Amino acid sequence: MSETVKYLLDETRIPRDWYNIVADLPRGPEPVLHPGTLQPIGPSDLEPLFPMALIAQEVATERHIEIPGPVRDVYRQWRPTPLFRARRLERALDTPAHIYYKYEGVSPAGSHKPNTAVAQAFYNAEAGVKRLTTETGAGQWGSSLAYAGALFGLDVQVFMVRVSFDQKPYRRALMEAWGAECIPSPSPRTNSGRQILATHPDSSGSLGIAISEAVEVAAQNDDTKYALGSVLNHVLLHQTIIGQEAMEQMAMAGEAPDIIVGCTGGGSNFAGIAFPFIGAALRAGSSIKVVACEPAACPSLTRGTYAYDFGDTGHLTPLVKMHTLGSAFVPPGFHAGGLRYHGMAPLVSLVADLGLLEARAYTQNACFAAGLQFARTEGILPAPEANHAVRGAIDEALRCKEEGVGRTILFNLCGHGHFDMQAYIDYGAGRLEDREYDPALLQAALEALPAVA
Amino acid sequence: MSETVKYLLDETRIPRDWYNIVADLPRGPEPVLHPGTLQPIGPSDLEPLFPMALIAQEVATERHIEIPGPVRDVYRQWRPTPLFRARRLERALDTPAHIYYKYEGVSPAGSHKPNTAVAQAFYNAEAGVKRLTTETGAGQWGSSLAYAGALFGLDVQVFMVRVSFDQKPYRRALMEAWGAECIPSPSPRTNSGRQILATHPDSSGSLGIAISEAVEVAAQNDDTKYALGSVLNHVLLHQTIIGQEAMEQMAMAGEAPDIIVGCTGGGSNFAGIAFPFIGAALRAGSSIKVVACEPAACPSLTRGTYAYDFGDTGHLTPLVKMHTLGSAFVPPGFHAGGLRYHGMAPLVSLVADLGLLEARAYTQNACFAAGLQFARTEGILPAPEANHAVRGAIDEALRCKEEGVGRTILFNLCGHGHFDMQAYIDYGAGRLEDREYDPALLQAALEALPAVA
Repeated sequence: MSETVKYLLDETRIPRDWYNIVADLPRGPEPVLHPGTLQPIGPSDLEPLFPMALIAQEVATERHIEIPGPVRDVYRQWRPTPLFRARRLERALDTPAHIYYKYEGVSPAGSHKPNTAVAQAFYNAEAGVKRLTTETGAGQWGSSLAYAGALFGLDVQVFMVRVSFDQKPYRRALMEAWGAECIPSPSPRTNSGRQILATHPDSSGSLGIAISEAVEVAAQNDDTKYALGSVLNHVLLHQTIIGQEAMEQMAMAGEAPDIIVGCTGGGSNFAGIAFPFIGAALRAGSSIKVVACEPAACPSLTRGTYAYDFGDTGHLTPLVKMHTLGSAFVPPGFHAGGLRYHGMAPLVSLVADLGLLEARAYTQNACFAAGLQFARTEGILPAPEANHAVRGAIDEALRCKEEGVGRTILFNLCGHGHFDMQAYIDYGAGRLEDREYDPALLQAALEALPAVA
Repeated sequence: MSETVKYLLDETRIPRDWYNIVADLPRGPEPVLHPGTLQPIGPSDLEPLFPMALIAQEVATERHIEIPGPVRDVYRQWRPTPLFRARRLERALDTPAHIYYKYEGVSPAGSHKPNTAVAQAFYNAEAGVKRLTTETGAGQWGSSLAYAGALFGLDVQVFMVRVSFDQKPYRRALMEAWGAECIPSPSPRTNSGRQILATHPDSSGSLGIAISEAVEVAAQNDDTKYALGSVLNHVLLHQTIIGQEAMEQMAMAGEAPDIIVGCTGGGSNFAGIAFPFIGAALRAGSSIKVVACEPAACPSLTRGTYAYDFGDTGHLTPLVKMHTLGSAFVPPGFHAGGLRYHGMAPLVSLVADLGLLEARAYTQNACFAAGLQFARTEGILPAPEANHAVRGAIDEALRCKEEGVGRTILFNLCGHGHFDMQAYIDYGAGRLEDREYDPALLQAALEALPAVA
């Protein structure tokens, strides 16, 4: 019996359309509100930040949106990504479950993020934009946008959360290698940054602050737009090629997943793998078990509330309805920088509110243990974020063993851990703490949520 | 016109045989000599170090050697690797040349090294071996053997050159993530190590010392064998799948390369891409231009002599005839740890002696400049070793432009630079020196070569 079970699509099978789950949900997403008036905004309100093509995708309701030729052309550099059956892991777990994983770490930046970075760079370049600003925490998104910017001739300016800027010089170096400018946030370049620095000169920064800075620069410069790596509808839309490819590959395997597992930070890789399957189930009138794995230290789906909130700390962004811990919430330190956001994508939040997913919160040591077991059986070292999905998939497989039932599990391995080795060193040395979030801080942040009628 | 031009083989097209260039060369390699008697050794002399299947490959003369099913099965995890045409780079250079590159960085360890690590782990596991020892400099090889050992259930013990062990904790962490034990060399575990430490307690180590330690442990333990990541005939043999795949892919592109470019440290990735093309030219009675790019700081092909020498510092290994700087040669510091070996593979040396390749030595700043130009056009950040091949390919393309001739260039991009970001940081900060080797040291090392009749 073959040990390596890989399903690889021919490059002509890169999806021609992105899949928009809005077309299949029983109700649509809530309107986006203006940060000043708290009234629903129109497309033109977003024009300082995004090109019209992306704004149109943000509010699109049609099921399929065509992927432009030049975007598919760049996707061909690493897509279609492989789908593997984790036969060695199954044997190590002695489970009757079949475990499949879609591997997005084969992209040049090492994660699923280039799927949307390339699309966003294309639409901005097409609209004559010269420069993109963005924020990054762990650096996966910033490096993906740096890569995409290099290919489409755009300048890229990345506000990197100060603590990551200091602790992750190699991620920064990768962005700079692709020609991007990387600025520690909070910075003296923006009003948002200066305000923070005035009161907290040693601020270690946060994603919420970095978003405020990037948005401010884009809003104030005509040749500059803003790019976000998760959360927004159009970002999730671009990631659906993951699930669409996986559907074809599961068909090649002659199986249909009973359970889909993904990790959730802002929600984009999760939506990428899960939405096409959820939509197909909705259209067929059937159901599928979908598990969202989030960090216990930043548990927006399991401990947050479904309410209108700002996307950033400085309250410059529009308000969206989402599962949120409150924009004032700050998680304790843990090693999955990509999962440290206070909110959850509005569409993932809506899917959760509709009862179409179940969420589960994991502490980090359990996730690293799963990641190492995966590395030693399947040969790929996952990113700390992806370890949450590995943990979830292993737990589902162990439940199958307990129950003596052979279910089919599919999870998204959204990136490799090459730039996260310090986390593995810390884990190996027993230095990782399973820190809880601060309940008083969470309560205060929830109480500070904006009052929306 | 499409910007991404990728040639991807179906996985059924993974070669079924490795290609042995010995069958096509006008004369065979010189015999291997016993380190004590300086007389040719027989297969049994190598048995303490290698399983018989690998010893047989070391002395094989047949053109094709079948790849075992379980090895091809693991290859399927990432092979066939893609071949790209570097159209964006061509445009940036404004060259009439067509530049193609084979990309080996898609393996789980990020380089070509798993091609032989998997084969060696398989043959050792099949022979009942429990543990493999090896040495590593930059860590590409050690991590590849750690990966392969995990898949075949072998313990792996890696002697890592002390300076790399201290400076590259992330490579070490990767080996440990795959379950390998990583020991700084020189170590107190071996006689070779203790002897060095007695006189040089602060020794920063060298590949030659680490080889001595790994060989010693293997020779003294019945359940333990030794694995080498380059230089030996069987290692080069395993890498020939690179060139065989590339031949098929160039045929898909409808072109035949006029020039093949590779970087040379021990010689294995170079042999992997070049030998199948050289062999085909020899059989056809034609010729092909083949360029070996080596570091000016450790220039075994351009400044070494073709003579018998030891593979290690402790003179525990057999002697092989090769281009060598002398086993006592120590290169100055530079950022391509995989190219710091004093010798060149005997088969690559023989090919050089037969006039079938031309060698070129590059200083490191020129190579990093080439690597960054490649990253910003093609989107992949190369390893510092691979930057030598990128430099060589760019120089050939610029020569085509000068001469107004549109030649077809193929080079091997043997690995990505994810674990080498410090080198890029140092380059960006202008901190990299183009240090020359010490001519007096070279002369002394050459004079100390063993006297072989």
